[in-house]
Amino acid sequence: MQKKAVVGIDIGGTNTVYGIVDQKGNYFAEGKIKTRDYANFNDFIEELTIQIRNSISKFNSDASVIGIGVGVPNGNYYNGTVEFAPNLPWKGVISVTKEIKARIGLPVIITNDANAAALGEMIYGAAKKMKDFIVITLGTGLGSGIVVNGKMVYGHDGFAGEIGHTIIFPDGRLCGCGRKGCLETYCSARGLTETYLQNLVESSADISAIDAKYIYERAKQGEQAAISAFNQTGDILGLALANTVAYTSPEAIFLFGGLANAGDLIFIPTRKSFEKNLLNIYKGKVKILPSGLKEGNSAVLGAASLIWNEHL
Amino acid sequence: MQKKAVVGIDIGGTNTVYGIVDQKGNYFAEGKIKTRDYANFNDFIEELTIQIRNSISKFNSDASVIGIGVGVPNGNYYNGTVEFAPNLPWKGVISVTKEIKARIGLPVIITNDANAAALGEMIYGAAKKMKDFIVITLGTGLGSGIVVNGKMVYGHDGFAGEIGHTIIFPDGRLCGCGRKGCLETYCSARGLTETYLQNLVESSADISAIDAKYIYERAKQGEQAAISAFNQTGDILGLALANTVAYTSPEAIFLFGGLANAGDLIFIPTRKSFEKNLLNIYKGKVKILPSGLKEGNSAVLGAASLIWNEHL
Repeated sequence: MQKKAVVGIDIGGTNTVYGIVDQKGNYFAEGKIKTRDYANFNDFIEELTIQIRNSISKFNSDASVIGIGVGVPNGNYYNGTVEFAPNLPWKGVISVTKEIKARIGLPVIITNDANAAALGEMIYGAAKKMKDFIVITLGTGLGSGIVVNGKMVYGHDGFAGEIGHTIIFPDGRLCGCGRKGCLETYCSARGLTETYLQNLVESSADISAIDAKYIYERAKQGEQAAISAFNQTGDILGLALANTVAYTSPEAIFLFGGLANAGDLIFIPTRKSFEKNLLNIYKGKVKILPSGLKEGNSAVLGAASLIWNEHL
Repeated sequence: MQKKAVVGIDIGGTNTVYGIVDQKGNYFAEGKIKTRDYANFNDFIEELTIQIRNSISKFNSDASVIGIGVGVPNGNYYNGTVEFAPNLPWKGVISVTKEIKARIGLPVIITNDANAAALGEMIYGAAKKMKDFIVITLGTGLGSGIVVNGKMVYGHDGFAGEIGHTIIFPDGRLCGCGRKGCLETYCSARGLTETYLQNLVESSADISAIDAKYIYERAKQGEQAAISAFNQTGDILGLALANTVAYTSPEAIFLFGGLANAGDLIFIPTRKSFEKNLLNIYKGKVKILPSGLKEGNSAVLGAASLIWNEHL
């Protein structure tokens, strides 16, 4: 029997990368185009699908490609669209799956990048045997993908899993969404940076150069303001995740992305606050774990998982 | 073909009621025993099952009973147990389904009362055509049952759906669970009463006689402290429900139980705060609705729905 392969596409604000992969995560081909170079969506999708068709034709005899999965901010599983994505060059509602399908003729499934990360964790990562878990992506913002009973939670409109936009402090920090006190204004690279700047009494640093990476380096060097910023972020994240457990009672919550790579600096205060704030019946039962996926190809594998998930 | 029937049992702190019902909610038989009269669980279950067996034998030729559903505080779907229920006479972990099955010989399914209410809404109530919805029970505390893609969310341990124990104000009111600021300390009959007492500058009322019903009557008479208590409760509930949408993105949220019967007094401020606090992508899409079940028999119908839900 011929081997099966899947195309995984990760559309980001800067770059769009794709890979053609098997069920174990081996790559048959990969490629990349610059999202920002295409002000017009049709030009973008034309170029992307030409490259993918070329990649497919080159190894066609080794495996048959059974579908295309797409991870993209504001991707809607039900409609096959990207809807009002603030960080992409194309405005309004874009029919992504329809346009790809018209050019490649394979089944196409789309979802947002955090949901793709959760599916990737289930197919390729550390959640392989889990049926109830949550992936939290800690990047510039905070994304989340919720899996219940082995199935991705999309909700009635395809937009479930926006834990980053639960209001954790009414009248708290102003969020990009226009409201105040959203979790992601505290627990994200941006949130960490704001907390750190508040902690700094005085500094000779160039403020515009301060980002999560800088704060990580300072914390590693023992700077109190930086260590405190991680602790404060973990305190709030642990509380929010304890609340999260009261919704779907997952077996584990995975932290993924830039901020999660800070390791103990973020995991220790998060776990401490999490256990402290958990309702009694959940205490000691729910793990907070690092992702089992490698940062480099996780987005492509997550997107590919959209197809594997429907075939397994 | 013989008609099918199901036994629904609602075990409460004061009374345990049961009904034998068909799929449309028609009763073949019903009965009741006083939970509080049985300090010993075995005596309780012996008496209850004798009564149910008698009820079944009386109409046996009209319909065949296919199973028994049980709604009970702290009921665990997976284990068939009641675990550490603070308001029941029996302590520790009680094997409810096993004991009933041993005496009646039919399939038995158990869950907590809020989950049973959600299933009841789906089988008999206003959520018949919905796949994603949430039921909030506003009684002495705040319970919740979450349905995703047509299935009850039980979580990895059977205890999902404790929205009443999400911490809405860190360092807020002391909760019965031992933590502070849980949603149910504000949005429940008890929470409303505490808010009302805080609003009262002076009063000739007997404070020990003040309960949710009293506050409802005062609000109906136009008393500002009472109306404000409902508004404050709705403000907080609306915010919490807006956060809830960011998890599972339901089509509707049903309010059920004592406090929900206050009608506009609670629904108007809740809906107002809900829409105000919703993330943009959800605005105008999610309904807050009263339950479609009648208060009197809803708990029994909800329990019965546990069986119908597995047979439909």
